[in-house]
Amino acid sequence: MNSENFSISEKIVSPSYIRQGSQARRSHEQLIRLLLEQGKCPEEGWSESTIELFLNELAVMDSNNFLGNCGVGEREGRVASSLVARRHYRLIHGIGRSGDIAAIQPKATGSSLLNKLTNSVVLDILKLSGVVTSCFVVPMATGMSLTLCFLTLRHKRPKGRYIIWPRIDQKSCFKAMITAGFEPVVVENILEGDELRTDMEAVERKVQELGAENILCIHSTTSCFAPRVPDRLEELATMSAKYDIPHVVNNAYGVQSSKCMHLIQQGARVGRIDAFVQSLDKNFMVPVGGAIIAGFNESFIQEISRMYPGRASASPSLDVLITLLTLGASGYRKLLAEQKEMYTYLAQELKRLAAAHGERLLHTPHNPISLAMSLDGLQAQSGKSVTQLGSMLFTRQVSGARVVALGNKQMVSGHMFCGFMSHSEAYPHPYLNAASAVGITRDDVTLCIKRLDKCLKSLRKESSARSGSPIPLTGQEDHAGEYVYKCNKK
Amino acid sequence: MNSENFSISEKIVSPSYIRQGSQARRSHEQLIRLLLEQGKCPEEGWSESTIELFLNELAVMDSNNFLGNCGVGEREGRVASSLVARRHYRLIHGIGRSGDIAAIQPKATGSSLLNKLTNSVVLDILKLSGVVTSCFVVPMATGMSLTLCFLTLRHKRPKGRYIIWPRIDQKSCFKAMITAGFEPVVVENILEGDELRTDMEAVERKVQELGAENILCIHSTTSCFAPRVPDRLEELATMSAKYDIPHVVNNAYGVQSSKCMHLIQQGARVGRIDAFVQSLDKNFMVPVGGAIIAGFNESFIQEISRMYPGRASASPSLDVLITLLTLGASGYRKLLAEQKEMYTYLAQELKRLAAAHGERLLHTPHNPISLAMSLDGLQAQSGKSVTQLGSMLFTRQVSGARVVALGNKQMVSGHMFCGFMSHSEAYPHPYLNAASAVGITRDDVTLCIKRLDKCLKSLRKESSARSGSPIPLTGQEDHAGEYVYKCNKK
Amino acid sequence: MNSENFSISEKIVSPSYIRQGSQARRSHEQLIRLLLEQGKCPEEGWSESTIELFLNELAVMDSNNFLGNCGVGEREGRVASSLVARRHYRLIHGIGRSGDIAAIQPKATGSSLLNKLTNSVVLDILKLSGVVTSCFVVPMATGMSLTLCFLTLRHKRPKGRYIIWPRIDQKSCFKAMITAGFEPVVVENILEGDELRTDMEAVERKVQELGAENILCIHSTTSCFAPRVPDRLEELATMSAKYDIPHVVNNAYGVQSSKCMHLIQQGARVGRIDAFVQSLDKNFMVPVGGAIIAGFNESFIQEISRMYPGRASASPSLDVLITLLTLGASGYRKLLAEQKEMYTYLAQELKRLAAAHGERLLHTPHNPISLAMSLDGLQAQSGKSVTQLGSMLFTRQVSGARVVALGNKQMVSGHMFCGFMSHSEAYPHPYLNAASAVGITRDDVTLCIKRLDKCLKSLRKESSARSGSPIPLTGQEDHAGEYVYKCNKK
Amino acid sequence: MNSENFSISEKIVSPSYIRQGSQARRSHEQLIRLLLEQGKCPEEGWSESTIELFLNELAVMDSNNFLGNCGVGEREGRVASSLVARRHYRLIHGIGRSGDIAAIQPKATGSSLLNKLTNSVVLDILKLSGVVTSCFVVPMATGMSLTLCFLTLRHKRPKGRYIIWPRIDQKSCFKAMITAGFEPVVVENILEGDELRTDMEAVERKVQELGAENILCIHSTTSCFAPRVPDRLEELATMSAKYDIPHVVNNAYGVQSSKCMHLIQQGARVGRIDAFVQSLDKNFMVPVGGAIIAGFNESFIQEISRMYPGRASASPSLDVLITLLTLGASGYRKLLAEQKEMYTYLAQELKRLAAAHGERLLHTPHNPISLAMSLDGLQAQSGKSVTQLGSMLFTRQVSGARVVALGNKQMVSGHMFCGFMSHSEAYPHPYLNAASAVGITRDDVTLCIKRLDKCLKSLRKESSARSGSPIPLTGQEDHAGEYVYKCNKK
Repeated sequence: MNSENFSISEKIVSPSYIRQGSQARRSHEQLIRLLLEQGKCPEEGWSESTIELFLNELAVMDSNNFLGNCGVGEREGRVASSLVARRHYRLIHGIGRSGDIAAIQPKATGSSLLNKLTNSVVLDILKLSGVVTSCFVVPMATGMSLTLCFLTLRHKRPKGRYIIWPRIDQKSCFKAMITAGFEPVVVENILEGDELRTDMEAVERKVQELGAENILCIHSTTSCFAPRVPDRLEELATMSAKYDIPHVVNNAYGVQSSKCMHLIQQGARVGRIDAFVQSLDKNFMVPVGGAIIAGFNESFIQEISRMYPGRASASPSLDVLITLLTLGASGYRKLLAEQKEMYTYLAQELKRLAAAHGERLLHTPHNPISLAMSLDGLQAQSGKSVTQLGSMLFTRQVSGARVVALGNKQMVSGHMFCGFMSHSEAYPHPYLNAASAVGITRDDVTLCIKRLDKCLKSLRKESSARSGSPIPLTGQEDHAGEYVYKCNKK
Repeated sequence: MNSENFSISEKIVSPSYIRQGSQARRSHEQLIRLLLEQGKCPEEGWSESTIELFLNELAVMDSNNFLGNCGVGEREGRVASSLVARRHYRLIHGIGRSGDIAAIQPKATGSSLLNKLTNSVVLDILKLSGVVTSCFVVPMATGMSLTLCFLTLRHKRPKGRYIIWPRIDQKSCFKAMITAGFEPVVVENILEGDELRTDMEAVERKVQELGAENILCIHSTTSCFAPRVPDRLEELATMSAKYDIPHVVNNAYGVQSSKCMHLIQQGARVGRIDAFVQSLDKNFMVPVGGAIIAGFNESFIQEISRMYPGRASASPSLDVLITLLTLGASGYRKLLAEQKEMYTYLAQELKRLAAAHGERLLHTPHNPISLAMSLDGLQAQSGKSVTQLGSMLFTRQVSGARVVALGNKQMVSGHMFCGFMSHSEAYPHPYLNAASAVGITRDDVTLCIKRLDKCLKSLRKESSARSGSPIPLTGQEDHAGEYVYKCNKK
Repeated sequence: MNSENFSISEKIVSPSYIRQGSQARRSHEQLIRLLLEQGKCPEEGWSESTIELFLNELAVMDSNNFLGNCGVGEREGRVASSLVARRHYRLIHGIGRSGDIAAIQPKATGSSLLNKLTNSVVLDILKLSGVVTSCFVVPMATGMSLTLCFLTLRHKRPKGRYIIWPRIDQKSCFKAMITAGFEPVVVENILEGDELRTDMEAVERKVQELGAENILCIHSTTSCFAPRVPDRLEELATMSAKYDIPHVVNNAYGVQSSKCMHLIQQGARVGRIDAFVQSLDKNFMVPVGGAIIAGFNESFIQEISRMYPGRASASPSLDVLITLLTLGASGYRKLLAEQKEMYTYLAQELKRLAAAHGERLLHTPHNPISLAMSLDGLQAQSGKSVTQLGSMLFTRQVSGARVVALGNKQMVSGHMFCGFMSHSEAYPHPYLNAASAVGITRDDVTLCIKRLDKCLKSLRKESSARSGSPIPLTGQEDHAGEYVYKCNKK
Repeated sequence: MNSENFSISEKIVSPSYIRQGSQARRSHEQLIRLLLEQGKCPEEGWSESTIELFLNELAVMDSNNFLGNCGVGEREGRVASSLVARRHYRLIHGIGRSGDIAAIQPKATGSSLLNKLTNSVVLDILKLSGVVTSCFVVPMATGMSLTLCFLTLRHKRPKGRYIIWPRIDQKSCFKAMITAGFEPVVVENILEGDELRTDMEAVERKVQELGAENILCIHSTTSCFAPRVPDRLEELATMSAKYDIPHVVNNAYGVQSSKCMHLIQQGARVGRIDAFVQSLDKNFMVPVGGAIIAGFNESFIQEISRMYPGRASASPSLDVLITLLTLGASGYRKLLAEQKEMYTYLAQELKRLAAAHGERLLHTPHNPISLAMSLDGLQAQSGKSVTQLGSMLFTRQVSGARVVALGNKQMVSGHMFCGFMSHSEAYPHPYLNAASAVGITRDDVTLCIKRLDKCLKSLRKESSARSGSPIPLTGQEDHAGEYVYKCNKK
C-alpha cells in the first residue's frame, strides 16, 4: 500500500499500529531496494512473503495486468487458464524481444526487470568464484545453449568447420556440435593412474593437421563422470590463445564446484576462454530447462544473446531468481559446502564397501563430484552381472548410480564410440559411478551404500548358486534405461 | 485412493457414502482414461479439480517424488525452493533425453507421459483443420524453432546456402535464418489493390538464378500484419515440389485462423510443405516460450525432434496441456469463433472511425486477423503526427496498436530494409494496425476505438492550433518502444 | 514497490516504461483506496491480481510476518506448515481480542483491517435492500450464532425462560435455543391454501399465557422449505413492540432474496427486530462456517459482539471478503437476478413435470426460493415409493432434492415433532422439495428435472410390474441420509 | 490413477517405467492406508506431495466436486471465487450436521472423513501424555469452547448458578462463564515464595458456603503467565469428586507441556475432570480459531459435541490435520523438546540480564512455559518507566513480552479486578513476562534479551538525565495495546 492508503487506514485501525505495519512493509521494500540498487544475490535469503510480494509487484507492471488495458495486437499476454496464470505469477510476456533475448519489452516492464535482475543475480553468484564479466540466462538446456554459442562463432569464423573436442561420453554436448552443423574432432583421453585426462599433444596435433583457421573452436569440459576428470583447461586455454582459436567450455554442473570454477578462472587468466556454459538445474536445484552462458568478454556474450531469434520463456529465469532469493548467497555457499562434505563421505563409504566386496574405489582426485568403484570381481563372475546390477539398483530406487560395463559400442549421429560411456576406447575396469551433487543429503549416501551392498551380496549369492551359469535377464535391460547398453565385443 | 483404502474408509464413514465418493472418483479416472486411450483433446473441458488430480498423479511417478528414493546422480530433480516445486506441480525433470526431445526418461515416467500426451493433444487440435501427421512442442519460441528446422535441413542439403523468403517485416523470423547460418534471399512483395502479396515470378526467378541445389528451403509466412497478407502457399508449395526444394512455413499465429490452416492444408495437398511452425502463446493463450513444429511427414518431424540436443523445459508443454484440458476442444473452437466475430466487429468499427476522420480501412480481405487503417490525413498534417499517435496510444494503454510511418529504413543483421515495418519498399500509405487475435474481447475493441478516436481528435486540434508548426516530441519516441522508428527519406 | 524503488528501477529499465508500470500499480492502489475510504463493496469486481496484492499487503502488517520480529509470548502466530501459512495468506492471528470479536489486535494490524473491512463490506451488501445499521461476521454457523444472540439477551432479560418459535422443521435453529438454555415454545403453523403460515393468534395466546416478562424473545424465520413460507414478520415485529419482547430473526439464506430482506425491513419499520442472523455460505457461496449477525440498533449488535469470549477464526471473514471483492456489487446483484430467474424456470419445469405425472406444483407464492411438488400419486402406489424416490435421487447425484413423506415423528432434544420435516402435524400431501438458491445454473435445473422424470417413470413401471406388492428396499434408507426418516403413524 | 489407467499408460511409456511409477504411487497409498486404519498421527511426517494427494482425494468425494452433480438444495457447496475454492482444497461443506458437529454428512463424504480423521489424529497426540478417551476439534477458540462446555453442563445441573474459579487474569476465560450465563466465583490465589497458587481452603469454603448443588462446576487453569502457576489440579479434582461437582479445565496452551498434561492425568486419576479445553493455535502452530474439547468420559464429550447447533467450519480441522501430518508424531515431539530447551535457555538469559540490571528472575518452578523478571528498580525510578518499557518493546518488535505494573484495576463484565494482570490483589513486584512457547527459536530469545537490555539501559540513562522528572509519554500508551493498563491506586 502507498502512503496515502496507510493514512486512510489510520482512520480504521489505530494510527500507531498502522505506523508499525507501514514500517514492517518498509523492511520488505528495503530488501527490494538493495536488490534493485546492487543487483546482487542478497547475503541472507528472503522469506517467501517478501519474494511473493516482489513478484506481485513485478506482475502489475506488465501490460496484461493493467486494469485499463485494451489489446489489439497479435500477442497480448492473454491467458486462458487461471491455473497457468497463477503458476507464472501472471508474468506472461516472457523475456527478450525479436532483436535480443536480453532486451527490454515495452509491454512488459515487470518481466523485463525480472530478466535483468536474474542475469545480474546469477552473475553475482558466478563471481563468488572469480572474475566473470558477463552472463545471461537462456531458457534452453546446456546442449542447445552450446549450439547457440557455436552458431554465433560461425559468423566470426566463416571458414571454421571443425570443433576440437576431448572425448566425453555424453550425448547432448556431442549433438550440440552436430546440430550447429560442425564436424566434431574427437580427441581420445589418456590414462594417468585411474584417471582419464586430456591428451594435450593429440589436441595440438589435430590443430596443426586441420589448420587453425578451419577450426571453429575448442570445446572442452569440466564436470564429468569419473574416472574422466575435468579437462586441462589452463593448457587448452593457452593453446587457444597461441593458435587464436576460440574456446568454449561445457561447465555443465561445474558451478557447484570451486575446483571447476577455479579451472575456468585460471584458463581465462593464462589463455583464452570465450564462453562457458552451465546448466541451471544441475547447479541451482531448479527444474530442467535453462542454462547460463557466461564469459569474460562482455561484447561477445552480448553477441550470443543477440543471436537468439525472438522472445523466450521467462520460466527458467523466474525459477532461478526465486531460488537464489530464497537461499541467499549464504544459503548457496552452505549448499556448496555440503556438497564437498558429502563428497568426502561418499568417497569414504564407497571405499569401505568396495574393500568389503573385493573391489576398490578408483583413484580420481581431480574429479570433485563424481566417483567410481571398480566392478572387476563382478565382471569376473559373469558378463551379465554388471548390467544386472544396474537394473537392480534402478528397481530399488537408487537413482543416478550408473553402471559401466566394458566394450559397449555406440553410434551417435554418425560417429562410432568404442567403449561408450567410459570416455575411452579401452578403459581397464568396469565400474559403477556415484556422484555427490549439490543438494545431496547424508541419507542419500547412506541408503545408496546400503542398497548397493545388498545388491552386490545378492548377485554373489546368485552367482555361486548358479555356479557360473548365465544369469537370465529377460526383459530387464529396459529397466536400466539410459544406464546400461548392450555390450558387443569389438 | 485405491480400492483398499476405500474399503477401510467404509469403517469410518457409512459404506454407501464411501461408495458414492469412490464412484465420483471413478468419473475423474474415466476422463483420464479417455485421454490416455485416445490421446485427444477432450471435447468438453475438464474441471480444475480433475486437472490437478491428474497432474499430481503424474508427479508421483517421477523419481524425485518417490518416497524411498536415494539419488547419487548429477541430476536428481532436487528443488531448493518449495515455491518453485509447487509452481511446477513437482514435475522437475523436464522433457526429453540427450538423444531426442520426444524421448522417454527412465527417471521421470510422469513427465514422460506429460510430454507424450501434450504432443498428442496438440496434434489433435491441429487436426481440427485437416490432415497433419506429426508434431511436437518445443520449449523455444517461433524464431528459434525455425532455426532448428533450418539446422535439420542442413544435414539433408549440405550444399544449401540460401533461403528464399518473401519479405515480412518481423525480425525474429529473419534472424532465425541468420542464426542458423544461412543467407536470406528477400523477395519483395507486390501490391494488389491495398494488399501486399507474394511475387511468385520473382520467387521463381531467384530459384533459377541461384540454382535449386544451393537453396536450403523456401521460407514462407501465413499470419502477418495487414496490408501484407498470407503468402500464396499453394503456388509456393507447388514450386517447392517442382524444384525439389524443402518448404518451411512460419505459421506464427495462424492456428487460430481456419484460413491460414486451410492454406497449409492446400499447400501440402498440391505441393510440398516439410514443416510448419507456430507459436504456443499466440495461438493458445499461454505464456511466451513455446512453439509447435508440425508436418505431414512423420519421419522428418522426428528428425527435427532428434536434432534438439539434450533435455528441455517441460514448462510450455505443461501450460498448453493444462490450457487445452481446461478449454476442451469445444472451448477452443468457441475461442476461434469469437476471434472471427471480433474480426468483423473490429473491421466495421475501424471503417466507421476511419470515415469519420477522413481516412479509410485498407481493403485486405486475405488477411484474417490483422487490419490496417490509412493515416494519410494525419501524415499530411505533419510528419510527426503519425509517430506521435503511436506514443499517445501507448501511454493510453492501447497495446498492440502499431503505427507505421512511411520511409523507415532499418538494418537487420546486415540487411537494409527500406520502408521497414511496412513489408514493402514503397507502400503508398502510412497506416495503423489493429488485430483481432484469439482471446480478444468486445471491450478490447470498443475501448481501443474510443481511445483512438480521442487521440485522432486531439492531434487534429493540436495541429490546427499550431497552424503547421512542428509538434514538439521531446523524449516521446521511447514511449513507443518497438512500434515507431525514425523516418529517413531514402 | 514504493516510489524510491521505482526510481531505482529506472536505471535498469527505461524510465518511461517504469513510469507506466508505476502508473499501473497506482490503479490497483486506487481501488484499495476507495475500499479503505468508503468501506463499501466495489461496484465492479476486482481482478485476482488486485485481491492478492491487497491480501499480501495486509499480511505484511501482521507481526508474525515482521522481518525483525522476536516473539516471547504464548501466541505469536507461528505456523508449522507452509501449506497452512499459504492457504491463509499468512494471516494467522485471527480476529478480535478477548474483549470483543470486533476489536483491534495490536499484534495484527493487517488482520484487524481485514476484520473491519469485511464487516463494513458485508454491511454495504445488506444495505442494498434497505436500512441496516450494524453487523459483524462471526466464524460460527447460523445455529451457534443464534445461540450467541439468545445468550446476550439473557443478560438483559434475566427472567426470560421461554422463546416463542413458529415451527420450522430444521434442527439447528431449534437446538440453538436448547443450547442457550431456554425452553422453545413451538407454535404450530396454519394452512392457507397450500401454504403453511404463522398463526398470529396462537403466538399472541402464548405470550399472554406465559407472561411477556418470562419470554426471552420471539424467534422467527424467513427462508424455509416450501410449503412453509416466511413468517409474518410485520405482524410478529408489531407484537414484539406491543409486548416489549425482543425479536430475533433466523434469516438463514434470506439475504439472496429481496422478499426476505424486504420483510425484515418492514418488520423493523413498523415494529421491533433486535437482530437477524444469516449464513455466509448459503448467501455468499463460501465454505460453511460463518454467519452475519445484523441489526438496526448498533449498540445491541455491539453487545453481542462483545459477548463472544476471545479471539476467533478469520477464515470465514477472509472468504467472504475475497468473494465480494471478486464479484463486486454488480456481480452479486447479477447472482441474485439469476436466482430469481432460475426460480421461475424451476417452477415452470416442475409444474410441467408434475402435470405429466399426475401430480401438481404446490401453490406457495410467498416462498421465493423453495418449491414443492406433490407426491400423492406415488404415495398411493405404495408407502415406500416416496422414500425410495429420495434414495434414487441421491444415488443419481441429484443433491438437495428433499422428499417428505407423511407421518414422520421425530424427537429432537426432548421435543416430539409430529409430521417432522413438513413443518406441520398433518400436512395433507407428501411432496418433494427443490430450491433455486444463489449460484444455481440452468443446467442444475434441467438435469434435475430430467433425472426426476426418469426416477418417477421407473418407480411407476416397477410398481405396475409388482402389481401392488411392496417394493423391497433393503439397505437403501441410509443412502438418503438426512432426507428420509421412518414413517410411523401416530 | 487406477490400475486400468496404469495399464493404458504402458502403451505410451515403457511398461517397466509405468510399473515403477505405479509402485511409487502405492507407497503414498500405503501411508494413507495406515492413517485410515489406525487413525493415528504417523510417526514420520508426510511430504507435501502425499498430503496434497490425500486432500485432493478427499475433495473429489464431496458432492460439490462430483462431475455429474446437479444441485437443487439451499446449500450445495457452490463457491463463487476460485481463490476461495483453492485455499480450502475444494472442501466446502464444513463439518458436522444439525444434530452433531461430529456427524457424517451425506453430501460430503470427504469432509466427513477429514473430520473423523482429524479428531482421531488429535486424540492420538493427546494420548502421548496419558489416557484420554475422547476429544473433538471445534472451530471456536478456547473461550467459546469453554462456554459450550458450561452450556452442556447446565442441562445436567439445572440448579447450577455458580462457577468456582481460581483467579487468572485473562479475559476470555472469565467471559466464557459470563456468556454462558453463570456467575463466576473468583477465588484469590495465595502467595508461596514468588508463586501464586490455588488457595484450596478458600475453594472449599466457597463450595460449602454456596452449596454444591448450586455450583455448576469448578473451572481451573493449567497454562498461565508467571508468577501464577498451574492450579493444584489433583486437589481440585479430588474436591470435585468429593462434592460431586463437575470440573472443567482450561488447558489453553498446556498440550505443549508435559507438566500440564501430567497434572490433568493425575487429576483424572485421583479425582474428577469432566472436560479439558485447549487451543489449537497455541499448541499446534496453526491460525487462531480452533480448540480441542477432550475428556475421559466418551459419552459426556459426545454430549458436548451434540450440543453444538448446526454445521461448522472445517478450516481449523484442516489446518491441524495438515500440520500434524506434516510434522508426524516425531516432529511434534521434537517441537516439544525444543520448547523445553528454550525454556531453560530463556530462564538462564533472563536471570543473567536481571542480575546485570539489579533485578531478579522470579522463582516460579511450577510454571513450565512462562517466566517473570522483577522490575522493582525500574519502578523505583519512576512510576511511568514500567509502562514505558512496554511501549518501547512493542515498537522494537519484541512481541509477547508483557509488562505488569502494580495496582491496575479493571472492571471486566461487571467484576472489579484489583491488581489486574497480576492474578493477585497485591502482588509484591512489578514484573515483565516472557514465555517459551512451542515454535520459539534460539534467535527469538537472543534478540529479545538484547533488545530488552537496550531498553533497560536507555530507560536508566533517561531517568538519571532527568534526575527524577516525570517521563513525557504523550500518545505512547496506545502503542502498548493490550499490555499496559492505567494504574489507579486503590
